[in-house]
Amino acid sequence: MSRPTSLPPEFRAIDVIRKKRDGLELSPAEIEGLVQAYTRGDIPDYQVSAWLMAIVLKGMTRPETAALTDAMLRSGEVLDLSSLPRRKVDKHSTGGVGDKTSLVLAPLVAAAGIAVPMISGRGLGHTGGTLDKLEAIPGFSVNLPVPEFRRVLEVCGCAMIGQTAEIAPADRKLYALRDVTGTVESPYLICASIMSKKLAEGIDALVLDVKTGSGAFMKKEADAAFLAELMVETGERMGKQVVALITDMDQPLGNMIGNALEVVEVVEVLKGRGPEDLRELCLHLAGWMLHLGRVSKTVAEGTQLSSELISSGKALEKFRQMIELQGGDARVIDDSGRLPQADHKLEVMCSQAGFVSSMQCEQIGTACVILGGGRERKEDSVDPAVGIVLHKKVGDHVQASESLATIYYDSDQKAERAKRLIGESVRIGSTAPAKRPLIHRVIQKSGDAN
Amino acid sequence: MSRPTSLPPEFRAIDVIRKKRDGLELSPAEIEGLVQAYTRGDIPDYQVSAWLMAIVLKGMTRPETAALTDAMLRSGEVLDLSSLPRRKVDKHSTGGVGDKTSLVLAPLVAAAGIAVPMISGRGLGHTGGTLDKLEAIPGFSVNLPVPEFRRVLEVCGCAMIGQTAEIAPADRKLYALRDVTGTVESPYLICASIMSKKLAEGIDALVLDVKTGSGAFMKKEADAAFLAELMVETGERMGKQVVALITDMDQPLGNMIGNALEVVEVVEVLKGRGPEDLRELCLHLAGWMLHLGRVSKTVAEGTQLSSELISSGKALEKFRQMIELQGGDARVIDDSGRLPQADHKLEVMCSQAGFVSSMQCEQIGTACVILGGGRERKEDSVDPAVGIVLHKKVGDHVQASESLATIYYDSDQKAERAKRLIGESVRIGSTAPAKRPLIHRVIQKSGDAN
Repeated sequence: MSRPTSLPPEFRAIDVIRKKRDGLELSPAEIEGLVQAYTRGDIPDYQVSAWLMAIVLKGMTRPETAALTDAMLRSGEVLDLSSLPRRKVDKHSTGGVGDKTSLVLAPLVAAAGIAVPMISGRGLGHTGGTLDKLEAIPGFSVNLPVPEFRRVLEVCGCAMIGQTAEIAPADRKLYALRDVTGTVESPYLICASIMSKKLAEGIDALVLDVKTGSGAFMKKEADAAFLAELMVETGERMGKQVVALITDMDQPLGNMIGNALEVVEVVEVLKGRGPEDLRELCLHLAGWMLHLGRVSKTVAEGTQLSSELISSGKALEKFRQMIELQGGDARVIDDSGRLPQADHKLEVMCSQAGFVSSMQCEQIGTACVILGGGRERKEDSVDPAVGIVLHKKVGDHVQASESLATIYYDSDQKAERAKRLIGESVRIGSTAPAKRPLIHRVIQKSGDAN
Repeated sequence: MSRPTSLPPEFRAIDVIRKKRDGLELSPAEIEGLVQAYTRGDIPDYQVSAWLMAIVLKGMTRPETAALTDAMLRSGEVLDLSSLPRRKVDKHSTGGVGDKTSLVLAPLVAAAGIAVPMISGRGLGHTGGTLDKLEAIPGFSVNLPVPEFRRVLEVCGCAMIGQTAEIAPADRKLYALRDVTGTVESPYLICASIMSKKLAEGIDALVLDVKTGSGAFMKKEADAAFLAELMVETGERMGKQVVALITDMDQPLGNMIGNALEVVEVVEVLKGRGPEDLRELCLHLAGWMLHLGRVSKTVAEGTQLSSELISSGKALEKFRQMIELQGGDARVIDDSGRLPQADHKLEVMCSQAGFVSSMQCEQIGTACVILGGGRERKEDSVDPAVGIVLHKKVGDHVQASESLATIYYDSDQKAERAKRLIGESVRIGSTAPAKRPLIHRVIQKSGDAN
């Protein structure tokens, strides 16, 4: 991380801050200079936080966003997976409630002959995290060193770990600062954060699952679409194939929320069962991954092949292999009783008959956090056993005194709070609501056709 | 500086940052909580710089601006001058080139029986500073402790010092942060910075001299008027009488620029001589100070009385008394040769005949900085002896090969750079330009009539 050669000798952080404050476009050299100097510790936090706030309020152009992504990506190691003969494709989701698709997709897509080098995150706030779900499997290690990650990937075709110290250190430092300075909420900064980490995986293509609705980070579809377009364009500017699907997070995905419960549901899907919405989304995302991975000519063909890989049991076997290679107890696949179990359960009863007209999805995620299944703050630990199983979803008919959901819990007090929150989050109407599509739209580089 | 009692127990800086980022109005408790916690060192610089940038880009309402001013004012000591039987009135200028009015006004207004407790600043960039000018007088101390400041004020009616550690420490800390984070340029923050310091002087009324033109901080009159209105309203909200004059800084004020030279010109004005523009502005500002100090019924009457205090020599005697009380050599009044003298002088000749149509005022201030008479950076020292005497001002007729200005200097190289800059800053036209008024407008609380 030497001083960029294109950087003028009189480079000063204050000039870059002022330029962004005044709404002018920064050059790649200015952005790279600032990011590199900050990562090295040559620029103080207080200058960078002012710059970040100026970005939040003034925005960035597409070239600026790509330059920021590139600078963050190159702040650390970029995995070189070129020795792997397969196409490398990953998926990233912006996060939601009950979103366990990554655990289905990694083995499913690997079973089709594509390499899936997946670096994931932990849950925070109402949204769950892939690493927490994986760790519900006894023994499963998400902290593999890079050489071991590479070995699992070579043997199995997929591997799932957490962010390492070597990958995009600028993002780690910037994200920690954004978290405490009110500068998280910028599509440009979110795009650079996501894309710098994902492109550091050394992938050829990326499928983005951008959530929208009451349980998503981007509640409005227009905001989700804006971020999606930004990420697609940024990825393409950096020479990668990227597609984004805007998908529904107005209610939890699938029926199970909570780390061990979500592993159960993943296994169900890999066994050809599981809830319709989760299964459909997984197959559709897999279809795109297979298509971008050049295994199928079209997305539909990729979806069909994915469905077959589930029916044949090959996807499940791949999951078993990955769990074993990462030190986990693969017997959980055949015996969910080997997963952590909560001591008690409690039903959330419905007080009136009718149709479920809506679910305040973020509140349901928060209910899981209250139970101990998620994190209020980054330093909190999670209880893998607790969670919620929904028996009704939006559009379902419900009888008075029928159970809406079962809460799996360890503490009575927490269970009561969670129960109240879930009860409040479900609206019952006299008629079935209009069905929201699961996949709202697909955003790809103009000119692509699929 | 205890926790404000009105502050909710769960007060978090991040919430205040986010609220301002989203363009919402902060409560006085939120603003006070943040300023107090920052002054105590309980909130890090990086959060405050993000907040400041959000203020720069989102602005503040009038109540927010007053709350910020109040919080900064109350971060330190507020002088209690209530034992002084006179009205306490001060003047503040937003800074310019050749602006030495404070040195005339303090003794002049004190001679009228008003107390002038003046806390001033140093020069920075192209603008000069009152403290630097005072220190050109051998022995003059601007670092009096508060009890000594109070004693000089009681004996003499005026005293002039620099900001002390006790006065508005929040402003000192915030200004240092703004200076390095691109957050200086906000009328709301400028207003709070100026008004918190001035109102900490324990004054009853304040006259603001807000400069506009090529040598001013606010080059556009609309920006100057906006800041002026903000400061007047903020002062009035805090129970003080405040008036602002928008005055011209499109060319230097008076003929002399440079610390010792400006003292010479101050003495000239106090002797009833001196350049017309400087004299007129001093009398007008004094008229307002006398009026707000209830010595005169009208501003015109105050101006007339001020003129008489100069003619009678009473203002000059007050200046002599203040210099002596603050340890300075008052003989400089009768013998300017006792002031620091530059070793050399150099004429800036005019290359063509015509009328001076404009002067790039900031460049002339910068020429003085180059000579060593001002500061590029806060930590620089200044040379009191060097400077510039203008022989021609805007509208004057000039012959080819006539001198436009004399440069007083110590270093040949610096003198040549300053000469070039002054030469470039003066435009000669074939006809006399339209005369700009010295006082553009007066801004006071609606309802006042004078």
